[in-house]
Amino acid sequence: MGEFDFIARHFRPLAGPGAMELRNDGATMALPAGEELVLSSDTMVEGLHFLPDDPAGTIARKLLRCNLSDLAAMGSRPRHYMLNVSVPPGRHYDEAWFTEFAAGLAADQKQYDISLLGGDTTGSPSPLMLNVTILGSVRRGQVLRRDGARAGDGVWITGSLGRAALGLQIRLGKLATGDASLVEAYRIPTPRTGLSLYGIVSAAMDISDGLLQDSGHIAEESGVAITLFEEKLPLVPEVAAHMATHRKIILLGGDDYELLLTCPAASEDALQAHCRQHGVPLTKVGMVTEGEGVTMLDRQHAPINFSRTGWQHF
Amino acid sequence: MGEFDFIARHFRPLAGPGAMELRNDGATMALPAGEELVLSSDTMVEGLHFLPDDPAGTIARKLLRCNLSDLAAMGSRPRHYMLNVSVPPGRHYDEAWFTEFAAGLAADQKQYDISLLGGDTTGSPSPLMLNVTILGSVRRGQVLRRDGARAGDGVWITGSLGRAALGLQIRLGKLATGDASLVEAYRIPTPRTGLSLYGIVSAAMDISDGLLQDSGHIAEESGVAITLFEEKLPLVPEVAAHMATHRKIILLGGDDYELLLTCPAASEDALQAHCRQHGVPLTKVGMVTEGEGVTMLDRQHAPINFSRTGWQHF
Repeated sequence: MGEFDFIARHFRPLAGPGAMELRNDGATMALPAGEELVLSSDTMVEGLHFLPDDPAGTIARKLLRCNLSDLAAMGSRPRHYMLNVSVPPGRHYDEAWFTEFAAGLAADQKQYDISLLGGDTTGSPSPLMLNVTILGSVRRGQVLRRDGARAGDGVWITGSLGRAALGLQIRLGKLATGDASLVEAYRIPTPRTGLSLYGIVSAAMDISDGLLQDSGHIAEESGVAITLFEEKLPLVPEVAAHMATHRKIILLGGDDYELLLTCPAASEDALQAHCRQHGVPLTKVGMVTEGEGVTMLDRQHAPINFSRTGWQHF
Repeated sequence: MGEFDFIARHFRPLAGPGAMELRNDGATMALPAGEELVLSSDTMVEGLHFLPDDPAGTIARKLLRCNLSDLAAMGSRPRHYMLNVSVPPGRHYDEAWFTEFAAGLAADQKQYDISLLGGDTTGSPSPLMLNVTILGSVRRGQVLRRDGARAGDGVWITGSLGRAALGLQIRLGKLATGDASLVEAYRIPTPRTGLSLYGIVSAAMDISDGLLQDSGHIAEESGVAITLFEEKLPLVPEVAAHMATHRKIILLGGDDYELLLTCPAASEDALQAHCRQHGVPLTKVGMVTEGEGVTMLDRQHAPINFSRTGWQHF
């Protein structure tokens, strides 16, 4: 297939205002007065971030949603994205696959009110490589950051933990259960877009590499210590059922794409009210203290000793 | 090496305002009043867009310059970029390699007055994959496009053709010559940033996939035909010397990253004066007529029949 026809067939229908129908060297984007741009970028590599036989539509949606989650963590409204695709020849990434892939993008474009601006399509000698740079906007100066946590703040997370990590175990054949919802959570995360937490929380990020490791980022950037309580972690019954055999995976696993927030005591009511109003489950799981590092205490309030803290890519 | 230490060591020193030292989920960028954002994205894959033993510093600079060239083609001033890197383990892409890679980025950041905003670093099962999304700005509504060429316009190109294509042939061992300047042209293109062609040219793009194919894009998007004259193509002596043996590669080769412009007769003086003022060589190589498609006429003014028109990635 020709590169230009390929782009025209699959991606032109996704192009939004400013993309100039993907017919130029690039794209344009205007910003509303008083707003600044917020950008984030995520790459997904076949075999590392998705499995070759994952459905094309869910791969597309996960690609967008990982990026949407980054914008959510920064308190930004999503607007557009740039898409980069490197396709290996002679594999199953054919017309049918990209038709389904584009349909997945289209579905989430509609759901999150975003559109494609541009990108690049190349070959790849081996794996399928996907990359999105997402563009959002926020009132100038109101972006959420990781470095504002202060001693005395509470540590909160949205949603629940461990579903995606167990879903991956199922996909890898390392966990036998018929629970399709766990696999679904791994394949199609739910980014927490749409909240307005500026002025309420003191720090925010999304949990992509695991609660312990990501808490470490907030602790480090804010110059504080964080203590997490295992007994307080929100686990749905399908996850809690596997704590005896998969505790470490549940506690350390990534791919949840929930928000990790710190919040001063004075704003706790506002945080809870805002999340309740938006139908977003919220749980207080720990506290910020002076010092450094992250400690997770077990049900007997003894520190849990993990050999590794989370996920690093290399 | 750890992912976060790796990013801190090599990329944090490149981070500009808005990048928040690469310590958050993303970055921010403000736009001057009255300007709109211009974006472009280019992926470079080991073995396709560069060779594994190309110097790390020139790979870095080519990555930025391909993207800078896209902004130049749209008449945009470059400002920032997002960098995505997927690194295969157990190869020569080690500390020393990335130190040289980052030094290449730093050199061109200085030269083009741009800075790193953010990105993503992952592993790769096989090739080194590099991607940049570049961000520039332009006065609102003044972006250059491909679809404005009109019958009667002249076709112009900056610089000269074929140096990079021959440089690649040397690198592939298919051309024996000691001319290092051709290899250098392949490795480090010169993006034509800094011109202000809005209101002068009717269409613009950069020549990345070869003059014939890229002219085809302007012809198609503008709904016109383009005729190019082989005798008028600007060739430096080091290139002209190989016309007898490598004519097709010189005429069709890509990677020049010169500007391809169409210009109404009434603006030709302004175009020439502007390029002269900026020290940019400029040559009229063809004309726009009614019709469709691109024809290149040889020195006897007979159409040259090429079996393929340029470079497509798959």
